[in-house]
Amino acid sequence: MNRNDSAGIRLVGFDADDTLWRSQDYFDEAQLDFERIVGGYVDLHQSGALQRLYETEKRNIALFGYGVKGMVLSMIEAAVDITQQRISAADLHRIVELGKDLLRHPVELLPGIPEAVREIASEFDVVLITKGDLFHQEAKVRQCGLADLFRRIEIVSEKDAATYARLFEEFGLPPQQFAMIGNSLRSDIAPVLALGGWGVHMQYHTTWAHENEAEIAADEPRLRRVDGAPALPAAVRELALAALA
Amino acid sequence: MNRNDSAGIRLVGFDADDTLWRSQDYFDEAQLDFERIVGGYVDLHQSGALQRLYETEKRNIALFGYGVKGMVLSMIEAAVDITQQRISAADLHRIVELGKDLLRHPVELLPGIPEAVREIASEFDVVLITKGDLFHQEAKVRQCGLADLFRRIEIVSEKDAATYARLFEEFGLPPQQFAMIGNSLRSDIAPVLALGGWGVHMQYHTTWAHENEAEIAADEPRLRRVDGAPALPAAVRELALAALA
Repeated sequence: MNRNDSAGIRLVGFDADDTLWRSQDYFDEAQLDFERIVGGYVDLHQSGALQRLYETEKRNIALFGYGVKGMVLSMIEAAVDITQQRISAADLHRIVELGKDLLRHPVELLPGIPEAVREIASEFDVVLITKGDLFHQEAKVRQCGLADLFRRIEIVSEKDAATYARLFEEFGLPPQQFAMIGNSLRSDIAPVLALGGWGVHMQYHTTWAHENEAEIAADEPRLRRVDGAPALPAAVRELALAALA
Repeated sequence: MNRNDSAGIRLVGFDADDTLWRSQDYFDEAQLDFERIVGGYVDLHQSGALQRLYETEKRNIALFGYGVKGMVLSMIEAAVDITQQRISAADLHRIVELGKDLLRHPVELLPGIPEAVREIASEFDVVLITKGDLFHQEAKVRQCGLADLFRRIEIVSEKDAATYARLFEEFGLPPQQFAMIGNSLRSDIAPVLALGGWGVHMQYHTTWAHENEAEIAADEPRLRRVDGAPALPAAVRELALAALA
């Protein structure tokens, strides 16, 4: 840490997917393309295609982890299953290409992010903590144009309390001096709060997942909620003041 | 670092795949299974099947990185191409299953590794530095039974001088105080030597890749070569003595 305050917030973590840049949108589009391909063979509704894709993905996550490559492999498996092996090699290859398009997609920063990250980085040390495929996330970090602002870039397979606890140890920092910014209550906010840290929840689109909501009290004093990047610097400053109090 | 010598070797890095445990063998077996599947459609030799698979893998590495999932996606793409889209959905699914089998394969430590790692860890701080898929490598590290011995586990997308330089900075250690143990001259030895560190090359099977050999002088004084894990502790001690001289 290059600031020697002994109290207050000294390090701010940013999530990446759907916090710094768009991600879920592309996965949703790929899923629509999957439906179009498989819909050429079966009635999507009658075959329960989407439910079967979801179940395949869920079953495979313990083996594949998060990320595009695992999703594509699950899509191929589900497409073979749903079409009762009738799907053509050409259409299965189209599914591989969906994945390649996702991996090639240029990074699209969310509105106001570059300014907000720069402003926060001028007042605090900042780190990037993101889940998913190492290779793809590194490519996005390289492309995003903000990598130099971050003191560390941590790509992890899972964002739970154990992961954050390990990171705090590596950072040599107590959780009380750390605030995490992200769109996921489950991955970015709840584990950090549970360890004694601080959080800024930035909602993505209008989705506000109910199962995530339930994990955190509405009046949680260590959490701020913002609706976009321009509100981030003020929210972090508020938490920093609260942490000094 | 928990030892306060100011000179000599203080940290020893281990590669994982084909250094701690078998890996390439399983990829080779998967490739034989691929040949059996695609061989049901074309003459492997006449179609140049293996060359086309290799070219597909090479072309995709910039997008997929290393690891099982990228290999399977390249196999599917190559199989569709080689069979001119004649391959069945069931056979493409068999290729997905090849990948799942690879990911599920229990970790098989190489002979003498547990003893060698324990002995070296009793005299030096040790870290694990491995390339590839984050999720799969973490699973193997969890299963290998040696994870607690390592001070840090670093899973990186590429093992080149830039990667090692970043790690040395994170470890707070000059390269002169670091020795790397691994089976790959290109990934484990050459970049560490180039930065001023030390290396122990442990050959895997009888393969001794010529293009790797060429990178390092036969009389390189900062390198030891061993033919198996039992010789590792003595080789590291030799380097440690040389580093003090």
